[in-house]
Amino acid sequence: MKMSSLQKNRYEYAPKLPSVLAMPLEKIELRSGIETGSAGDQAALSQIFKKTFGKPIVSFEAGNNPYAHKVLTVGVVLSGGQAPGGHNVIAGIADALRAGSADSRLIGFLGGPSGILQDNAILLTSEIIDSYKNTGGFDMIGSGRTKIETQDQFKSALEVCQKRQLDALVVIGGDDSNTNAALLAEYFVDQNSDICVIGVPKTIDGDLKNEMIEVSFGFDTATKTYSELIGNIERDANSAKKYWHFIKLMGRSASHICLECALQTQPNIAIISEEVEAKKQTLGQIVHQIADIVVGRAKNGDNFGVVLVPEGLIEFIPEVKMLISELNALLADHVEYFSTLNTFEDQAEWVNKNLTRDSSYVFSSLPNNIQRQLLMDRDPHGNVQVSRIETEKMLIEMVDDRLAELKTETKYSGIFSSQNHFFGYEGRCAFPSNFDADYCYSLGYNAVVLAQFELTGYISSIRNLALPASQWLAGGIPFTMMMNMERRQGQEKPVIKKALVELDGKPFQSFISEREVWARESAYVFPGAIQYYGPDEVCNAPSKTLSLEHS
Amino acid sequence: MKMSSLQKNRYEYAPKLPSVLAMPLEKIELRSGIETGSAGDQAALSQIFKKTFGKPIVSFEAGNNPYAHKVLTVGVVLSGGQAPGGHNVIAGIADALRAGSADSRLIGFLGGPSGILQDNAILLTSEIIDSYKNTGGFDMIGSGRTKIETQDQFKSALEVCQKRQLDALVVIGGDDSNTNAALLAEYFVDQNSDICVIGVPKTIDGDLKNEMIEVSFGFDTATKTYSELIGNIERDANSAKKYWHFIKLMGRSASHICLECALQTQPNIAIISEEVEAKKQTLGQIVHQIADIVVGRAKNGDNFGVVLVPEGLIEFIPEVKMLISELNALLADHVEYFSTLNTFEDQAEWVNKNLTRDSSYVFSSLPNNIQRQLLMDRDPHGNVQVSRIETEKMLIEMVDDRLAELKTETKYSGIFSSQNHFFGYEGRCAFPSNFDADYCYSLGYNAVVLAQFELTGYISSIRNLALPASQWLAGGIPFTMMMNMERRQGQEKPVIKKALVELDGKPFQSFISEREVWARESAYVFPGAIQYYGPDEVCNAPSKTLSLEHS
Repeated sequence: MKMSSLQKNRYEYAPKLPSVLAMPLEKIELRSGIETGSAGDQAALSQIFKKTFGKPIVSFEAGNNPYAHKVLTVGVVLSGGQAPGGHNVIAGIADALRAGSADSRLIGFLGGPSGILQDNAILLTSEIIDSYKNTGGFDMIGSGRTKIETQDQFKSALEVCQKRQLDALVVIGGDDSNTNAALLAEYFVDQNSDICVIGVPKTIDGDLKNEMIEVSFGFDTATKTYSELIGNIERDANSAKKYWHFIKLMGRSASHICLECALQTQPNIAIISEEVEAKKQTLGQIVHQIADIVVGRAKNGDNFGVVLVPEGLIEFIPEVKMLISELNALLADHVEYFSTLNTFEDQAEWVNKNLTRDSSYVFSSLPNNIQRQLLMDRDPHGNVQVSRIETEKMLIEMVDDRLAELKTETKYSGIFSSQNHFFGYEGRCAFPSNFDADYCYSLGYNAVVLAQFELTGYISSIRNLALPASQWLAGGIPFTMMMNMERRQGQEKPVIKKALVELDGKPFQSFISEREVWARESAYVFPGAIQYYGPDEVCNAPSKTLSLEHS
Repeated sequence: MKMSSLQKNRYEYAPKLPSVLAMPLEKIELRSGIETGSAGDQAALSQIFKKTFGKPIVSFEAGNNPYAHKVLTVGVVLSGGQAPGGHNVIAGIADALRAGSADSRLIGFLGGPSGILQDNAILLTSEIIDSYKNTGGFDMIGSGRTKIETQDQFKSALEVCQKRQLDALVVIGGDDSNTNAALLAEYFVDQNSDICVIGVPKTIDGDLKNEMIEVSFGFDTATKTYSELIGNIERDANSAKKYWHFIKLMGRSASHICLECALQTQPNIAIISEEVEAKKQTLGQIVHQIADIVVGRAKNGDNFGVVLVPEGLIEFIPEVKMLISELNALLADHVEYFSTLNTFEDQAEWVNKNLTRDSSYVFSSLPNNIQRQLLMDRDPHGNVQVSRIETEKMLIEMVDDRLAELKTETKYSGIFSSQNHFFGYEGRCAFPSNFDADYCYSLGYNAVVLAQFELTGYISSIRNLALPASQWLAGGIPFTMMMNMERRQGQEKPVIKKALVELDGKPFQSFISEREVWARESAYVFPGAIQYYGPDEVCNAPSKTLSLEHS
């Protein structure tokens, strides 16, 4: 197998551990805090999690660990979309197991949670693990989106874990996967199994975050990769001075990525979905705001700029959300009749007649090809495929129309040429930054110590991340502490609360305190490519969001 | 001004020079070789370049330089699209001037060649230059696409250069800009001016290359940036195992970028336009080839892959080139009538009736939205905007259709889901790789030595680039040596020959010797982000193309 020079050299990188975990295992002592509650709906949650609710936060400190050399068999599974660092979680687990006993074993379930249900797994030898250390991707054992959430699935999972003689199952995933891990932990205890279920917080989106989880892994690397590209484009815009670049960034349910990239690169405009929703902005208002900034810059002779757009934007615009929900209902109710309408024009006419007056107005205001996407590009359930809507192109077209209006009113005399970009897949599998490499390795290593102490229903927790790795804290947080009840598909369900951008938080406040200057001037910052070597501030700095939130 | 940590640290980087240029200026001696000819059409060229044709290749070696401390005023201009390293060419010029005499001055013309015509320039102080050293972009003085090519323009340029009391004008540009620099050099001599005109070979496309120019600057950084992203996407494809990613890469007239990125990342498919043209492939054949590879991988259970597509592809497919040329002619001849056709359907019907049978067949075989683009998205001269055609989406749609056929013939039973990407602006303004930082700085430094020896009509030449910088050779190549006559806009014109991918060259041969394995297996290589620090092989390696061509 041919390998890049970087990959060969990254094999040599020794991820940093918090001081407490860098000690011999027998010197790592467990400290338990007081019992915990939940993020909300305590009564309901304590009923659902009869056995695992209310456990204490635990931390590791210098002392004694009587279980340091226990022989353990641990299973690990990757769940959901890729995030840089997944392989290092596994490497951390493997190294901690090896440090404990040469007889401990690590089993990797293949292709995500379905690998558990189908008992599709391999023994992860050091040879395998070493060839993935400090690399991006989830290709060591693959991932998948199957969810283990029904009683039947819980039963199968337990059978497989028992058959495999696991002492612990480590689930590396996002909020949904960790929610299901919490339910699985409860089920295992309820079935009198002592197999621990331990979670690891993963997602580039950054929305698995709370008081106890400072950041999910992958966010650092992904946002650094996107920021590299945004900075390059800013420099291009500022050199050529002829294009407005509209850049859509991955992240459907929260705008953390967009905000972090804005803080790193200082674009002219960055839209934050949570603000749009809080202010109940209309699509028209957003378009007008962008157009006004374009006009302002044109007056200074700057017919160029950079706009960041979060992938999930349109679902945060109340009127568009309403339109999409009406469309989904309308087309579901009239599948057959709708299928007799052969041309887009006929479809659009019929839809317009049957929507509410407000939604019909919104629909009509959309560019023609977005209307087409809404009507024609539908998922197998007949729903609008929101993630495939080219929001960045839609905004370009609408801004262009708005500028044409302003031109006829002689309020604008610039030139508006545009380019569009979408960054997502470009960052999910990058080589993890030193931060993510260290953090992930620590999360994995720490998960094994949790397993040694037979802690189940916990998420592996490494905190104090804005400080150097040696000062990080290690421990575990009960899943239930981060949960509340939410309505999902018509049912009240226990879920780990998704973290949206907090409008009164320091990152957003820092952004709004500067954005007017950024809009007017070209205050671009060029982060450049992620560096794995070099001066400390170049290759070891955490994200701006993390630094601001924990400074 | 806020700056990234990398930018601050890159200011400290001291670009490497060839040993001969690292000596004190007074020890750099000029050696002249024998008189040169041209790449072709010697008779015509010697008539056009009466004063500057046939000059010798020159090189610098250890010895004596009587002009080392001459006070010089040099003008510099950036021409055309951005390429990483432009600022370092200027830094190299500035440092060589400073090494020669504290009284020497560097004038930067603003906004490209129009800055010369309009005498729009600034004095480039070390303060300005230091704040751009080792950074990407052309924002220090801007760039532009104005061409200095008419007699009137030559006259204005001479007047401005004389008024500015220049001893030399350094033109940093691609093949066209250097062609115009050659004509300007000739004009200056002809007008008895002793202002030297010296070129510097710039373009990320890699098509300004010949026996004497091993690579144009910017190619190294841009292809490393694109390869970073392609590698990340490959890793994602190989982890998620659910998408075929079609990636279009910048570079209209040659496929060097696509070939280099393929050599770096080993995708399943990389289309090389020059091969398509040489084999007179049809669009249908290309689509069938891709589909066959998709089918082959699906048989192994691999319903994913990565395809690289050069931006200029469709202009290299003979039948599509013909279609576009017919469409341009047809619509130019019937502007008024065509404008009376209001719907796409009417337009398409009329066009189909009036194209030749062959072109009508090709037109009809294109996906509907590509037909629309061809008819509706036209430049101010009414021509099809080839660069805006979404070739990668077109291929996806046509492959999808082909696979549907194969499915009905029960020859395919896989799943084809796709994602499309276009990388161009992402790489033109990256921080230059160490290679480009060193190469550019050397090119600029070298240009000043050429000016000290009053050499005009030369391109700054640094060679032996596959070896470490200390072993690089420095000198100058007469523009005319690289020129021939070509038909451009109906006229025979002297031009620097564009270098296309040579199908018998080592890079392409290396590619075809491996591509069948790459198609079948997932032999992906993940280069990762450009590193500016770290082990030598990680941060100082030249491109694969360069290494293969000069190994």
